[in-house]
Amino acid sequence: MSAKLEQLKEKLGEVADIANAASVLGWDQQVNMPSAGNEARGQQLATLSKIAQEKFISDEVGRLIEDLKQELNGADSDEAALVRVAARNYDKARRVPPSFIAEQAVVTSRAFEAWMEARGKSDFSIFRPHLEKVVELVQKYISFFPPADHPYDTLLDDYERGMKTAEVQAIFDGLRPKQVELIKAITSAKQVKADFLYKKYNEKKLVDFGVDVITKFGYDWKRGRQDKAPHPFETAFNVNDVRITTRFEEDNPLATLFSTMHESGHAMYEQGIKPVYDRTPLSGGTSLAVHESQSRMWENLVGRSLPFWEHFYPALKNTFPSQLDGVGIKVFYKAINKVEPSLIRVNADEATYNLHIMLRLELEIGMVEGRIAVKDLPEIWNTKMQEYLGVTPPNDAKGVLQDIHWSGGSIGYFSTYALGNLVSAQLWEKINKDIRGLDDQIRKGNFSELLAWLRRNIHEHGQKYEPQELVERVTGSKITPEPYVRYLTKKYSEIYGL
Amino acid sequence: MSAKLEQLKEKLGEVADIANAASVLGWDQQVNMPSAGNEARGQQLATLSKIAQEKFISDEVGRLIEDLKQELNGADSDEAALVRVAARNYDKARRVPPSFIAEQAVVTSRAFEAWMEARGKSDFSIFRPHLEKVVELVQKYISFFPPADHPYDTLLDDYERGMKTAEVQAIFDGLRPKQVELIKAITSAKQVKADFLYKKYNEKKLVDFGVDVITKFGYDWKRGRQDKAPHPFETAFNVNDVRITTRFEEDNPLATLFSTMHESGHAMYEQGIKPVYDRTPLSGGTSLAVHESQSRMWENLVGRSLPFWEHFYPALKNTFPSQLDGVGIKVFYKAINKVEPSLIRVNADEATYNLHIMLRLELEIGMVEGRIAVKDLPEIWNTKMQEYLGVTPPNDAKGVLQDIHWSGGSIGYFSTYALGNLVSAQLWEKINKDIRGLDDQIRKGNFSELLAWLRRNIHEHGQKYEPQELVERVTGSKITPEPYVRYLTKKYSEIYGL
Repeated sequence: MSAKLEQLKEKLGEVADIANAASVLGWDQQVNMPSAGNEARGQQLATLSKIAQEKFISDEVGRLIEDLKQELNGADSDEAALVRVAARNYDKARRVPPSFIAEQAVVTSRAFEAWMEARGKSDFSIFRPHLEKVVELVQKYISFFPPADHPYDTLLDDYERGMKTAEVQAIFDGLRPKQVELIKAITSAKQVKADFLYKKYNEKKLVDFGVDVITKFGYDWKRGRQDKAPHPFETAFNVNDVRITTRFEEDNPLATLFSTMHESGHAMYEQGIKPVYDRTPLSGGTSLAVHESQSRMWENLVGRSLPFWEHFYPALKNTFPSQLDGVGIKVFYKAINKVEPSLIRVNADEATYNLHIMLRLELEIGMVEGRIAVKDLPEIWNTKMQEYLGVTPPNDAKGVLQDIHWSGGSIGYFSTYALGNLVSAQLWEKINKDIRGLDDQIRKGNFSELLAWLRRNIHEHGQKYEPQELVERVTGSKITPEPYVRYLTKKYSEIYGL
Repeated sequence: MSAKLEQLKEKLGEVADIANAASVLGWDQQVNMPSAGNEARGQQLATLSKIAQEKFISDEVGRLIEDLKQELNGADSDEAALVRVAARNYDKARRVPPSFIAEQAVVTSRAFEAWMEARGKSDFSIFRPHLEKVVELVQKYISFFPPADHPYDTLLDDYERGMKTAEVQAIFDGLRPKQVELIKAITSAKQVKADFLYKKYNEKKLVDFGVDVITKFGYDWKRGRQDKAPHPFETAFNVNDVRITTRFEEDNPLATLFSTMHESGHAMYEQGIKPVYDRTPLSGGTSLAVHESQSRMWENLVGRSLPFWEHFYPALKNTFPSQLDGVGIKVFYKAINKVEPSLIRVNADEATYNLHIMLRLELEIGMVEGRIAVKDLPEIWNTKMQEYLGVTPPNDAKGVLQDIHWSGGSIGYFSTYALGNLVSAQLWEKINKDIRGLDDQIRKGNFSELLAWLRRNIHEHGQKYEPQELVERVTGSKITPEPYVRYLTKKYSEIYGL
């Protein structure tokens, strides 16, 4: 067995090397590359992806997996998990013909161009025929797989291993009325002041402040770095090289700070995975939702909490004395937690964010089922925005055209953002049971016990456990909305005096 | 034919994509990577190199080349050149067993570590057993190829396609006595003053000055960028993404300026190659010597010339008024061309540099022939340094251990540096016949006609012509030492009043 396992690990190690090399090229493309290099870089990435795919779906890898599966059946060891995850990925990859992948690359590349133009001109009709092709492709993709309880399950499984559409719907159904109700209560309450957040802040000082914060969090700079890029993101080339990016927005300067905390949460997850999982299918976070639970936890449950600012606010005020002149900590805390139903998902606050996601999930399921036609999306979008958030987009750029995801063929992705919020609160309740006086630790700028808990319970396991399995192991329950509702209700009741 | 050519180009395009991806990873390793990422990066690079090799030496590529060779035999077209260069590279690659490449990687990796330690402690005995293994491997490598006129030919051909050991020896034999004589005359003459070059200069201002200079040269920033790295180098991922690096040395600040010009010369070569050669074996410079001719031309024949400084010196003096207080342009010009026989190759001036190379070539040939034993290298090194340059290293770190090349298995490389000097002067004579008043153009900071000449005569051809063939096409003669001797003699006669 050991010899076959070594052979499989060698094969999969090569595939991982190629994928990691591609990640370096992708990072470079965002961070450094002169734009003239775009076409050649696209070609290089296409070649690497094709070779990784060929190497992975080879008959030899299939035979090794088959043999090892029988020998390791049911075991709880790392080796058994490795073979289990490899088998699942192999089966999925083998079902998708290379010709489909090539077609998809062409369709989504054109759809992306069209989306850029459509959003620029706020004209959905430019994007519509491309999105129709994307939906056709998605339906074709689903047809490669055995029938599931719901056709959308196949898509969801690519982002959230093992998760079912019905589960997500049940979770969201439990969440929606409570969140809508909370938002109504908040919007009827006395509003908080936040104008001082939008003054002119010095970019370098804010970025440096962010660096100080995530250094205290425990982001390991010896195994990473931060650069400027058009969009903030985290990317890992292996456990010892996990990088993040940041950006500065003139009209929303403090976003830099929160997005830095957010990306550091992703990065600390990747830095905390067992090094022996490197170059195996167990490397990387177990799902997008669990990944998002880490970024949201550091950004929101830590970074937008009162104890956090009891530690950091004096330094922030010292750094920006004129901007924060006369602003007490309570006022600042309320401002960074201001709730305002708005049009754009990425700018949404904690209370309204999930509703943006639910809307998208309903549209996606409708498109996959064939109930919702692409041409009707703008109207349905606007109706639902009014229903959930009480706002109506003035145009499609601020409505149905705002997100990049569909243009790239990523249908099935969105709900992981909301699930990540739920998981972060669910873990937070457990963490606060396990760590006595966590608030006091945070108030002292001490995050080591928190990070150690996350390392031990979440990070180190990589992809060994499926997301629902992992959450249940740690909290005693699968993903559930109650902790998030409790968290929101408590927090906003205090802030808005509900 | 066209179908087979397309097939071959597709296969070779993939190989080029992988090689270019590896170059991105290599650049990142030098410029950005946290050092903790080193081991994984080495693994990623090893995998890419292995896959590129496998894809290249496949039987299918061999069959396509064989068929196309017969059909395109003797033609002067780009297509015929592509197949010719591919055939040559294929034949060389097929002769070297993968097991040898793996062995070489292990041996040179250990040799590199040992060299680092040996140089640090200035103790050749640490490096000796590793270098002995490297020499054994080099001899084994030679044995894979058909007997040549000289066993060293096989090594030389890897760096300088088509060049023979006897040719290099004849060139160097013509050069050595004249260069030794010139140096003797210079060292007996009144010495020039250069202390002001070693004052404290501001790093950023110097780097910015270098950026201004190479912008005027014609380095295309839309298709490149400059970063800081421990060693200056140039690297190309395709014709639209050609990057350079720079460094700052406290004790030799102006080196930044000259090394920036040097790397820009390499980079403008790569930026000038026909875009249709991208992803084919015709991409990239045709040889190390021709590449070096471009870097040395911009660094020395342009960048250390009086007309160049007639344009730039006022600005430099403006930037560094205190450092250059009372230093007239003639004094400055003499200082940056000061000749001083010294121990370290990379710091050598134009008059002495080639002698450092000749010494190394003699030792390499001696090792390959089995006439010189590794254990005797330090003694022979020191004797020859005294003979050629009149200096003796106080220790091996400043002698036989100074260069990285042998530790990486690169035997056969050094002479291309000296050949590059010769080619730069040989081209320069021709350029000055073709471009009227080039000195006046340089005096006005106008380099466009010079760059256009280089583009047309050298750059655009990529690897279409072998180096000797290219030099002969352009200058009417193969590589010859006379122009360089004339250049040195004229320049230093004026500077030192010989």
